[in-house]
Amino acid sequence: MSSLKTIVHASQMLTGRGIRRKEGRHPKEQDLDTIIDGAIVADAERIHWVGKTSDLPKKYLKTKRTNLNQRQLVTPGLVDCHTHLVFAGDRSEDFALRCAGLSYEEVAQRGGGIARTVAETRRASAAELFRLAQPRIEAAAAYGTRTIEIKSGYGLSLESEIKILKVIQMLKRKYRHLTIRSTFLGAHDFPKEKSREKYLDELIKKMLPKVAREKLADACDIFIDEGYYSLDEGRRILEKAQSLKFPIKLHADELANTESAKLACELGALSADHLLQVSDDGILALAQSKTVAVLLPGTAFYLKKPHAPARRLIDAGARVAISTDFNPGTCVCLSLPTIMTIAALYLGLSKAEIFAAVTYNAAAALGLEDRKGALETGFDADFVVHPFARFEELYYQFGWAPPLMGKPFTGR
Amino acid sequence: MSSLKTIVHASQMLTGRGIRRKEGRHPKEQDLDTIIDGAIVADAERIHWVGKTSDLPKKYLKTKRTNLNQRQLVTPGLVDCHTHLVFAGDRSEDFALRCAGLSYEEVAQRGGGIARTVAETRRASAAELFRLAQPRIEAAAAYGTRTIEIKSGYGLSLESEIKILKVIQMLKRKYRHLTIRSTFLGAHDFPKEKSREKYLDELIKKMLPKVAREKLADACDIFIDEGYYSLDEGRRILEKAQSLKFPIKLHADELANTESAKLACELGALSADHLLQVSDDGILALAQSKTVAVLLPGTAFYLKKPHAPARRLIDAGARVAISTDFNPGTCVCLSLPTIMTIAALYLGLSKAEIFAAVTYNAAAALGLEDRKGALETGFDADFVVHPFARFEELYYQFGWAPPLMGKPFTGR
Repeated sequence: MSSLKTIVHASQMLTGRGIRRKEGRHPKEQDLDTIIDGAIVADAERIHWVGKTSDLPKKYLKTKRTNLNQRQLVTPGLVDCHTHLVFAGDRSEDFALRCAGLSYEEVAQRGGGIARTVAETRRASAAELFRLAQPRIEAAAAYGTRTIEIKSGYGLSLESEIKILKVIQMLKRKYRHLTIRSTFLGAHDFPKEKSREKYLDELIKKMLPKVAREKLADACDIFIDEGYYSLDEGRRILEKAQSLKFPIKLHADELANTESAKLACELGALSADHLLQVSDDGILALAQSKTVAVLLPGTAFYLKKPHAPARRLIDAGARVAISTDFNPGTCVCLSLPTIMTIAALYLGLSKAEIFAAVTYNAAAALGLEDRKGALETGFDADFVVHPFARFEELYYQFGWAPPLMGKPFTGR
Repeated sequence: MSSLKTIVHASQMLTGRGIRRKEGRHPKEQDLDTIIDGAIVADAERIHWVGKTSDLPKKYLKTKRTNLNQRQLVTPGLVDCHTHLVFAGDRSEDFALRCAGLSYEEVAQRGGGIARTVAETRRASAAELFRLAQPRIEAAAAYGTRTIEIKSGYGLSLESEIKILKVIQMLKRKYRHLTIRSTFLGAHDFPKEKSREKYLDELIKKMLPKVAREKLADACDIFIDEGYYSLDEGRRILEKAQSLKFPIKLHADELANTESAKLACELGALSADHLLQVSDDGILALAQSKTVAVLLPGTAFYLKKPHAPARRLIDAGARVAISTDFNPGTCVCLSLPTIMTIAALYLGLSKAEIFAAVTYNAAAALGLEDRKGALETGFDADFVVHPFARFEELYYQFGWAPPLMGKPFTGR
């Protein structure tokens, strides 16, 4: 019992147990299973007990105790399930062009876009990429993120993609109190120096097998879109990834509708991400599958594009997550709370829907829904004590300043 | 000489001297008068010298020196020229209603809006309001704000308005390293317990004279709009304020066009603020006057309204500032950099225009343009050393995390 810690008198303890029971579909206020004056008992690994402080079993009365005096709330650790956090250089030039009125596609045609970051990331050493990534991880954690997915994809060559995946491994070792998930996104774009067919061949025959053999990624992702990978190319890569036992994810229906959300559901992908242009058929497919619809409203905000049809997805019964999409070109934001503000205002998400989108559903988009995203006995001891009393305060204000409000901390 | 401090090897020193010469109109890149490898010499009060580090006069060589190693940039302290920072309670209930699809006007009709905050602010003691305001001021300062305007207006009675203005005085005394400006906004709304005519009479005959006599405000503001003060009522109040020697400001043409921007120019107001609905005539009047057009793009973002015609204002020759409008209902944001991101993307402002909007022009909106908003010999020793090398980094990322990037500091 000596390793157990108890937190008592939380103003609110949002357990999200009802959301888990409904597998993240149609989240309602009552599904938050909010405990007023809550307590939680955990060791460094697992949650042992969750309930009302007045119901705390006698056997836990002698554990080390933190009293929140009804002033602070507890939630599951936030999950940011879609980022491109490892890269070199910046894209502030692209940003200036976009502010002057150019579209993302026009900026890419002028030598900006993913290609600019690929050139700078290829030149950087693993040590340099590791150095650049650390303050980013720490910023995300300061906003309450406890699980973060990171994609490769700014290498676009065997050597550079492996370099990025190894940097993510270094980050996993350094930040053991966080959960970092690594996704191989060699199919983020096509490299300029090779033919399309040659790179595809390399991806399928060399890169994927090597990433699998060396256990460098927890999942495989691909950017299917107009001007990027076609639906057929996507299917070839994803089927190969599945034959190597990778869970799969898709950048789907962002710039144009390619029916890639439907492909995601057909293949049983963990998630279909972006979905700005998803069709009615795509929405129906998502509603009828376990594939999580990951929406990235900060990216639509930053690119000045119309938002994804979040309400139609949720109302149809899809499991909807939101994420930062943190990357140097299309969403330079590490703050999940800021993304939650945009989701509340512009996607029309309710409190329960927002909660589900950054906890259980985001965990499901990473295949972690049996351990994370809810406060349940046996789940990971992964929770955040927020420096305020009510959940709404996390996103009712924006451009957030956590250190002045007190430091969030976890049970670990 | 012992009190002098010198900062050397700034990566960039954005002096804004050209912007000042042009009185803030048509700001261009070259008007930033950016010094590469810059130095600045100041005592606690005034700037003594600004130039290239290599040109530093010999007489300053023995002053206390900070070397920025070309890694950090220096700008004038940022000026947030429009906030409603002193209030009690929050409006997260209003926010939830708006996220569910109601307009600001509909929320106000249901008992939300300004009236909700007035009720809570009236109930709060001066000590409580002072306690609530402090972390807000400190958050703003953490983002680089060094001058901040605060309006009353959540009292709407002689006693409550005076209470708020006295809290602003307490803040002035506590934060002497910042510049706080107090604006009387008794005409923010009409109180529910009195007739319109009775409150107007009280404003003009009792409140304004008392605020003037006790020197409780640096300026007088009014909310002229559909459902709030009419143009004629506004003129009566503002002319009385001017007779009492108050500089004046106007909430103008926000919810509807009332030609209040034209009134602002006619009366020689320091600023006309909001301007979402300003007419072509209003734009012309602003272009031909010294009255600053203060735009609040965070509010349009938060209320999901179309943005002010910033480009037409700037291109016509108006002096344009931007500000947070921080308040509990329509823009819960203390971060000027976040507002700068929105202004860049959604108002289409260039780097020079954004710089002018948070320095010289914002200082002019407070009547401080002879002391603040530029780095010039004789100006206030009011500048910020940012924790990065280029100005764009201040707003190219959003949902900003300053403490992880190092702490900004001033010359004081």
